[in-house]
Amino acid sequence: MPSTVCRAILEPVTPPLDLTTLQAELDTAIFRELPDAHTNPDLERFYTLLRDYPERGGKRLRGLVLLLSAAAHGASWRAGLGVAAALELFQNWVLIHDDIEDNSEDRRGHPALHKQIGMPVALNVGDALHIYMWRTLLRADWTSWAQQWRVVEAFEGMISRTAEGQHLDLIWVAEGRFDVSEADYLAMVTLKSAYYTVVGPLTLGALCAGAEPNPRLYEAGIDLGVAFQIRDDVLNLMDDVSYGKEFAGDLFEAKRTLVLAHFFAHAAPQQQDEVRRVLGKPRPEKTHAEVARVLLLLRETGSLRYAQVVAEAKAASGLTRLRDALRTSPDQAAAGTIVQLLGEVAQRRT
Amino acid sequence: MPSTVCRAILEPVTPPLDLTTLQAELDTAIFRELPDAHTNPDLERFYTLLRDYPERGGKRLRGLVLLLSAAAHGASWRAGLGVAAALELFQNWVLIHDDIEDNSEDRRGHPALHKQIGMPVALNVGDALHIYMWRTLLRADWTSWAQQWRVVEAFEGMISRTAEGQHLDLIWVAEGRFDVSEADYLAMVTLKSAYYTVVGPLTLGALCAGAEPNPRLYEAGIDLGVAFQIRDDVLNLMDDVSYGKEFAGDLFEAKRTLVLAHFFAHAAPQQQDEVRRVLGKPRPEKTHAEVARVLLLLRETGSLRYAQVVAEAKAASGLTRLRDALRTSPDQAAAGTIVQLLGEVAQRRT
Repeated sequence: MPSTVCRAILEPVTPPLDLTTLQAELDTAIFRELPDAHTNPDLERFYTLLRDYPERGGKRLRGLVLLLSAAAHGASWRAGLGVAAALELFQNWVLIHDDIEDNSEDRRGHPALHKQIGMPVALNVGDALHIYMWRTLLRADWTSWAQQWRVVEAFEGMISRTAEGQHLDLIWVAEGRFDVSEADYLAMVTLKSAYYTVVGPLTLGALCAGAEPNPRLYEAGIDLGVAFQIRDDVLNLMDDVSYGKEFAGDLFEAKRTLVLAHFFAHAAPQQQDEVRRVLGKPRPEKTHAEVARVLLLLRETGSLRYAQVVAEAKAASGLTRLRDALRTSPDQAAAGTIVQLLGEVAQRRT
Repeated sequence: MPSTVCRAILEPVTPPLDLTTLQAELDTAIFRELPDAHTNPDLERFYTLLRDYPERGGKRLRGLVLLLSAAAHGASWRAGLGVAAALELFQNWVLIHDDIEDNSEDRRGHPALHKQIGMPVALNVGDALHIYMWRTLLRADWTSWAQQWRVVEAFEGMISRTAEGQHLDLIWVAEGRFDVSEADYLAMVTLKSAYYTVVGPLTLGALCAGAEPNPRLYEAGIDLGVAFQIRDDVLNLMDDVSYGKEFAGDLFEAKRTLVLAHFFAHAAPQQQDEVRRVLGKPRPEKTHAEVARVLLLLRETGSLRYAQVVAEAKAASGLTRLRDALRTSPDQAAAGTIVQLLGEVAQRRT
């Protein structure tokens, strides 16, 4: 069949995917739709503020997985570039608003935006970045209206779920609720973290390639996303307390975690009362000694260890499901890189 | 010409536009894409919070003008329904965030959302409503991808400008700037208010009808939008202070207005110092007596009167330009209703 021979000769060999190249192209795409110059110096400064969080870097894990997923599903990774950039912008405006909601001090080694320029201006910068996220998403390189619609609908579902998870996280703290079960916690982090961190990148990549995502990608993504979040919660409590450094921010903020859910299901009533009393205090009234004591109780009850075990089990089942879901992908090199990348993050120790 | 006769017989007579009907249909469209039921009671409560501000009502002026503009440009007003609903949702999430930024007490006769449920939860509700605004916009009744693209791009430009205007308003207060000129103020309110209040509704209505907006609609919309905002600023300072009721919120918040711009350009240096000293204080430290004294100085310098005169001139030129821009519109009844509606608001006394 001469035509096949012809194609084999004419088509360039797909070069192996180089993560550094992908990251550089993703960086360019993230800033492509952000404005930079304005004749009004106050607005030019506003544009600088829009780029502040995105310029602080980060691993760009979510965007990279999306690009790799587009490749694994048979398209060029470039097919996912605009959507991957929008996903990274999503994380950035969410971080600006999260930092306000939690009154966080720092973000990626610098003061949080609202600490630099005040809450009102920072809140509005987050809103503007949210608008530019949609601009970036809608200006992605679409092959048809139907494809745009399918991807945009999935993207919107992903970020709506994130807002729902965020609501649960915030309302439990706002209402001083300590009756949060393990199931409640898992439902919350699935919505708050797993969708936009793993499920979204994997399935949006498939949709950008014009493929319908394998349902097992959702299961894999939820397991891995939940594993990431539990590991984050555990690492937050793993710093060495003996030096009295800033540690256990989640306890100061009284964030509901799997560690706490396990503790309140298993600790003696007297110990539960003690922990409830400390966590229920406003943040500035909590002393380091009190928080260290809570941490000790969480360790003694085996709650910290329990969360580690659950995170490891979720990571293992997630990776198995992911390998299974990508087993027949047209680009096995890209599929392998996804498994490796997510495996490293799911099993990280720091 | 039989065909014309035929059409005249077969086509239903366009019923006159009834604002009550339009308002009711708009209300339905505003809530159409908002979620309501969830098996998780915390998320069902979240959905109730999403509907809170939209259910507080308001005139729906922006949405109504958009519907009327679609009709005036030769389409059914229904062609603008989804976009008008998105515009109303825009105003609602912006109000939630504005109220946080200004730490406002009340909104439409009830406590502001962050006063009800705390800042973190309210901020996230605003973000979720922003997402549902895009969902509503993108699910509007489009005739083609090209039309969707044209309208969505214009909508995004409108709300980006609003965020820029909001930035100017906030940064001037945050940085304690009193060197805001009349030109600075006019540029700020054009961005912050005129686009989404008048320019957007008029031109988006045209685009929904498949018409290219007359450039004079932009000029008319800027004049009228600026007139509305100046009148708002003036009305804020017009309450009778002798009874010591809550009044002059803009002075307590030290908002930069045309009144202040005129004052700092014309008052004696000593009086300027006095006003700067009061306005520069944090809100809780300002006394009613101090604010009443500032108001007296603003009156004596003629600054309040000046702002009124500018608002009246802008309203008059805006209405003239609007009549001119709509002179050849296919539906003169709808065009007349727009002029009447905007005229009433531009010249209102309360």
